[in-house]
Amino acid sequence: HSWVEVPEGSDFTIYNIPFGVFRPNPSEKPRVGTAIGNYVVDLSVLAHEGLFGEAYADTFHESSLNAFMAQGRPAWKDARRKIQALLTGDDARLKNNNDLRNKALIDINSVTMELPAVIGDYTDFYSSKEHATNVGTMFRGKDNALQPNWTYLPVGYHGRSSSVIKSGIDIHRPQGQLQKDPNDAHQGSTFGPCKLMDFELEMGTFVGPGNEMGKPIAMSQAEDHIFGLTLMNDWSARDIQKWEYVPLGPFTAKNFATTISPWVVTLEALEPFRSSTSAGEQNPEPHGYLKDPNYGSYDIQLDVYLKTPQLTEPYRLCHSNFSNLYWNIKQQLVHHSVTGCNMRPGDCLGSGTISGSTPDSYGSMLELCWKGTNPIKLPNGEERKFLQDGDEVVMKGYCQKAHVRIGFGDCRGKVLSPVPIES
Amino acid sequence: HSWVEVPEGSDFTIYNIPFGVFRPNPSEKPRVGTAIGNYVVDLSVLAHEGLFGEAYADTFHESSLNAFMAQGRPAWKDARRKIQALLTGDDARLKNNNDLRNKALIDINSVTMELPAVIGDYTDFYSSKEHATNVGTMFRGKDNALQPNWTYLPVGYHGRSSSVIKSGIDIHRPQGQLQKDPNDAHQGSTFGPCKLMDFELEMGTFVGPGNEMGKPIAMSQAEDHIFGLTLMNDWSARDIQKWEYVPLGPFTAKNFATTISPWVVTLEALEPFRSSTSAGEQNPEPHGYLKDPNYGSYDIQLDVYLKTPQLTEPYRLCHSNFSNLYWNIKQQLVHHSVTGCNMRPGDCLGSGTISGSTPDSYGSMLELCWKGTNPIKLPNGEERKFLQDGDEVVMKGYCQKAHVRIGFGDCRGKVLSPVPIES
Ligand SMILES: [Ca+2]
Ligand SMILES: [Ca+2]
Ligand SMILES: [Mg+2]
Ligand SMILES: [Mg+2]
Ligand code: NI
Repeated sequence: HSWVEVPEGSDFTIYNIPFGVFRPNPSEKPRVGTAIGNYVVDLSVLAHEGLFGEAYADTFHESSLNAFMAQGRPAWKDARRKIQALLTGDDARLKNNNDLRNKALIDINSVTMELPAVIGDYTDFYSSKEHATNVGTMFRGKDNALQPNWTYLPVGYHGRSSSVIKSGIDIHRPQGQLQKDPNDAHQGSTFGPCKLMDFELEMGTFVGPGNEMGKPIAMSQAEDHIFGLTLMNDWSARDIQKWEYVPLGPFTAKNFATTISPWVVTLEALEPFRSSTSAGEQNPEPHGYLKDPNYGSYDIQLDVYLKTPQLTEPYRLCHSNFSNLYWNIKQQLVHHSVTGCNMRPGDCLGSGTISGSTPDSYGSMLELCWKGTNPIKLPNGEERKFLQDGDEVVMKGYCQKAHVRIGFGDCRGKVLSPVPIES
Repeated sequence: HSWVEVPEGSDFTIYNIPFGVFRPNPSEKPRVGTAIGNYVVDLSVLAHEGLFGEAYADTFHESSLNAFMAQGRPAWKDARRKIQALLTGDDARLKNNNDLRNKALIDINSVTMELPAVIGDYTDFYSSKEHATNVGTMFRGKDNALQPNWTYLPVGYHGRSSSVIKSGIDIHRPQGQLQKDPNDAHQGSTFGPCKLMDFELEMGTFVGPGNEMGKPIAMSQAEDHIFGLTLMNDWSARDIQKWEYVPLGPFTAKNFATTISPWVVTLEALEPFRSSTSAGEQNPEPHGYLKDPNYGSYDIQLDVYLKTPQLTEPYRLCHSNFSNLYWNIKQQLVHHSVTGCNMRPGDCLGSGTISGSTPDSYGSMLELCWKGTNPIKLPNGEERKFLQDGDEVVMKGYCQKAHVRIGFGDCRGKVLSPVPIES
């Protein structure tokens, strides 16, 4: 246990030690921190005071986690162990130093969290079989729902890194081209605000050291290249997507915003929560490069809440679990690099929408309301088929086993009205 | 005319003044330069000596063009004008200063060119109607060749920025999943080296200042956000692409390498070469945001040469023209940002393969050999359907009108044998 008070149900227990980037106040530069209870711990201050010896003095002063991510698993483990020792008091140098404590521990509600990393490339996968089947059924009909390649490889596409944003930034409803006649693409398109605005419940994997171009990451090395996970909302304009995505995939329907939670929870913290995937095993057996001898996932509970301007309490739309993904994060990473693509520290891989098999576990409005045919009734009598202006989506994630709990913090964003377009 | 000797047929005349990043030697930091004849001009030296007044002292010392790209068109024009004056002798401060000349003018064959920019995001379009029709016919049959959305918007997808590389870096043949039975995807895949290795003749547009998230770039502002153009080879593994691209687009078939030429030719230099597009006009008329009142292109001649280990002379595979693109670079940029996507200085937009209407103008082996059914006979008796190990692809581009000529330098890369994969 920590000498810092950790309230019951806190995401940030001594078992967590997430990493993030924050500003203590608007006039100071961003730096690296961790969270415990209701405090952010300024790791740059601890490094400066020599509490990690020579280590991390540079990396924790950076305004992104990229340098730390590049240092690799031995450094991540070492830093975690030393931080835990400082916060339990096994290493009493922080606990017993009043001045340093006052300098390093900052009220979590007084800081500004920043994006944890400079994301060189952002990729989005499509790895829940239930999500792919649901969407495929709605977009292409039941017979072509799951494409033949889906069970052979983790289908994915490159996303837009410039618009990956931190939790709490509100986004304007996008405008774009919409298919004029939903049943006949040959009628062309109209232009206007997206009418089918959606979220996607995902998690983001942050890449560690990465690989050189032309030298794929082997499955046996995959975990050493994964720093940790965040929550992710892959905002999606369904009507724009439907019209534009053939044949080269989603483009402007997805590139206007992708929100991630600020704290990166490491694989070390997730270790006690290893689990099987809900699929249990993979059939057909993956090709050699993709076969994971420790095929499995992590038991991470995921909730999506909706706040409308009228609702007094956030309403839970969805309860899912990270283990619903058929292709795991190691397989995503290994496949991403198989043709020789170089992965860099800070690259972010979206998991794909995490839908389970029951209707209350579907990770998007598209699926929850089955393309608008089955609206959600909110407790105050409102209905939703898709998101309306003023609606806020809040994602939460946590792992719990007996008294051990770790969480991810919130991933939130509100939909604002569209901005006038100049032509 | 310049006091620097410019050989007949040089790409780098006084009318060009391209911008690039180079190292004078391996022990020195990259910095910004331009090219004239067979010389690179070290602009950081000229800025340091005050030849631009206070301007560009910082930006030309950077190891990328991003800061200069961010400065916007007035700065680009001003710098160009001042550099031209120094190189014509209208401003005699360089011409008449022996020491400075020796310091600033460096043999172009002795420097190492670097990537011109840190590319935050790389996007690839699909804007030649002939290319889209050719590929569509081969991949999906004649009836579904051009999708209904193609004439309404510039179809594009996000690419991989980490593997955008400079000219001259050789690439290993990628390995990945290939559809087992070409006619029946339900038979699954095999794993192995790509057999249908291809190039795509493209140009890359570099973005200037860019826009804030949520505030699309208007057509009336589009040109102010375009710094200039390079040549681009979008290497493509056709067999991997065929198996993986449904439904979310090309992924590992494209993300192993994209080669660009090192010199960025500005829109100022291209101004005298404005031209109509080969389409002439657009039908249907684009939506308001996409309608370009000055719809047109640039008359840029494009050649692709093949060098095999056996060939004594490079063989010209293709002769095309930039004006073969139906959607122009302004339209690509405006569409990219229409839903609110923020564009950043240094972002790169691939034009899409630039095929014309005649078979010798097709910009890929896939089209030139029509999916391998019509092999190319080389002068020495060799045949090619796709690229073999040891083959080098060289792209060249230039504009010529009376005595005015500007060129892009080379975009080259060789295909090496595959690297063993660990599983
Ligand atoms: Ca997604
Ligand atoms: Ca391409
Ligand atoms: Mg997104
Ligand atoms: Mg490429
Ligand atoms: Ni200097």
